[in-house]
Amino acid sequence: MEPETLASLTERGLIARLRPHLATRPDVLLGAGDDCALVRPPAPGEALVLKSDPVICGRHFLPDTEPRRIGHKALGRVLSDFAAMGAEPRWGLIDFSAPPDTPAETAEQIYEGIHALAERYGVAITGGDTTAADTLSLHVFVAGAVPEGKALLRSAAEPGDSLYVTGLLGRSYESGHHLDFEPRIAVGRWLRERGIRCAIDISDGLASELWHLAEESGVRLFLIAPAVPLSPVCEAMPDALAHALTDGEDFELLFTVPPDDIRFLPDFLHAFPEIPCTPVGIVGERLAGGRVTYGSGDGGTLLPRGGFDHFVTALAGHA
Amino acid sequence: MEPETLASLTERGLIARLRPHLATRPDVLLGAGDDCALVRPPAPGEALVLKSDPVICGRHFLPDTEPRRIGHKALGRVLSDFAAMGAEPRWGLIDFSAPPDTPAETAEQIYEGIHALAERYGVAITGGDTTAADTLSLHVFVAGAVPEGKALLRSAAEPGDSLYVTGLLGRSYESGHHLDFEPRIAVGRWLRERGIRCAIDISDGLASELWHLAEESGVRLFLIAPAVPLSPVCEAMPDALAHALTDGEDFELLFTVPPDDIRFLPDFLHAFPEIPCTPVGIVGERLAGGRVTYGSGDGGTLLPRGGFDHFVTALAGHA
Repeated sequence: MEPETLASLTERGLIARLRPHLATRPDVLLGAGDDCALVRPPAPGEALVLKSDPVICGRHFLPDTEPRRIGHKALGRVLSDFAAMGAEPRWGLIDFSAPPDTPAETAEQIYEGIHALAERYGVAITGGDTTAADTLSLHVFVAGAVPEGKALLRSAAEPGDSLYVTGLLGRSYESGHHLDFEPRIAVGRWLRERGIRCAIDISDGLASELWHLAEESGVRLFLIAPAVPLSPVCEAMPDALAHALTDGEDFELLFTVPPDDIRFLPDFLHAFPEIPCTPVGIVGERLAGGRVTYGSGDGGTLLPRGGFDHFVTALAGHA
Repeated sequence: MEPETLASLTERGLIARLRPHLATRPDVLLGAGDDCALVRPPAPGEALVLKSDPVICGRHFLPDTEPRRIGHKALGRVLSDFAAMGAEPRWGLIDFSAPPDTPAETAEQIYEGIHALAERYGVAITGGDTTAADTLSLHVFVAGAVPEGKALLRSAAEPGDSLYVTGLLGRSYESGHHLDFEPRIAVGRWLRERGIRCAIDISDGLASELWHLAEESGVRLFLIAPAVPLSPVCEAMPDALAHALTDGEDFELLFTVPPDDIRFLPDFLHAFPEIPCTPVGIVGERLAGGRVTYGSGDGGTLLPRGGFDHFVTALAGHA
């Protein structure tokens, strides 16, 4: 017997097959199956949090990537953004596109990868869309909540704060980390509850995210380059630091800690003994437009923005 | 000078260029630019409504489609689903993928098309993602609200109700309607406020949507085939009725009216004098699994499901 493909199954058959893989939660009033999903909104005093992200074959994973890991990454990328705000993800929609000859089993395994991660963080998958396309891709949309006025923001760095990063950076592709990473939801929540105000997730590379923080907060950042924590795969390479600064897809958190919070690091290590947490710089003076420098000398050296720019990188790939 | 492309502009430059095109609203706490968007959630007593839909070059529009109309369709498809629930769309996210050599102006015009429609219905565009890809596509996510317990549902058809459709059906591609349609937001809201309980939007073809209603409500539907309102382009063709039943992308509403609501049609025509509204059948007895029939004879003739199935159609296109 021919293995079932998406074309032989039809869109309707595919959805019927995927429905058992959709995680749910008690505040879902109407899940997948009608024109829209209906859920009970966040409580008064909470902000509604919205975010979407794609994963596209050839850009975010390769044709031979294990389907479960594709699903994990598709949801994980969005959850990493929720982590960076200290927010709680609650409901997800999945737009799934694939060539018609894709085995139905591949689609199921992708959804299993999504489901396993969704269950771990209490996210219900409440709908989405399936379409034929030349390229396999997923676009994941998540809605959730955060106490109003408490979200960690890119714009909240204050002069005198210290800069910290979680985890070890660089060579996420070689190590497979970009497919396996655990979104830092628990860390983000803990930071928010402790009163931390400023964070961003490292998706485009540390250098790029430092620039985002500097620009959005309107401050100068001083990077302590030798302090940047290198992943083992990265450490073994020439230009290890450049990789750690610009490779992207680390999905760690970069955040700031006020100068008087001297118990921060021991408390963090007590709460998350398995997660490295490293001071990598300080926030300097207010400066319209922002700036990131490293090293000594008069004002230091301007840090190249570098990082993973989706359109430029694609062009390089075509050259 | 070379015209600017997405690659020469970079993702960041593109976003800076698109930001002025993003509609907003007063309940947006934090728009595009941070890890997630933050908005004030629906009030107590309202359900949060969630929906996503893609438009993909070669499937939902052609390479030479005018960019503004691509944008209009991308948001319009999702708004049509909100209309079918009588819901109010409030906040949208746009995932935009395009080849790096796409002119920056094309991207801008697509966003202008989105923006014009978003403004008309009070939808804020609060973020999204831009990525290079081989194919131009947009995935639009919208969140909004509807009074809890009042959403129009596919599952709410009752024996004895009449079936109605708005507008004229068939040949949406030939007429360009699939790029120009006005989502029936105002009609959906009016139906909800009048106490109508059951609706679905016609995206995959009337036949397919009748089957969805029948199955989700667990009823038999009797279609009055000669009553199906044909668009002028459709009317002129052989097999006009087959086209009106199965072509898809009409983005009209199919809904049910209780038998005692004898003022319904005059009231509708008074409220929406420009919009055709046609009775096309009745809801028969409860029947597990549902059924749609037409014509006379013992139980009538089973209506083929037909309709626009994304995976099957794609396969036919490859044959």
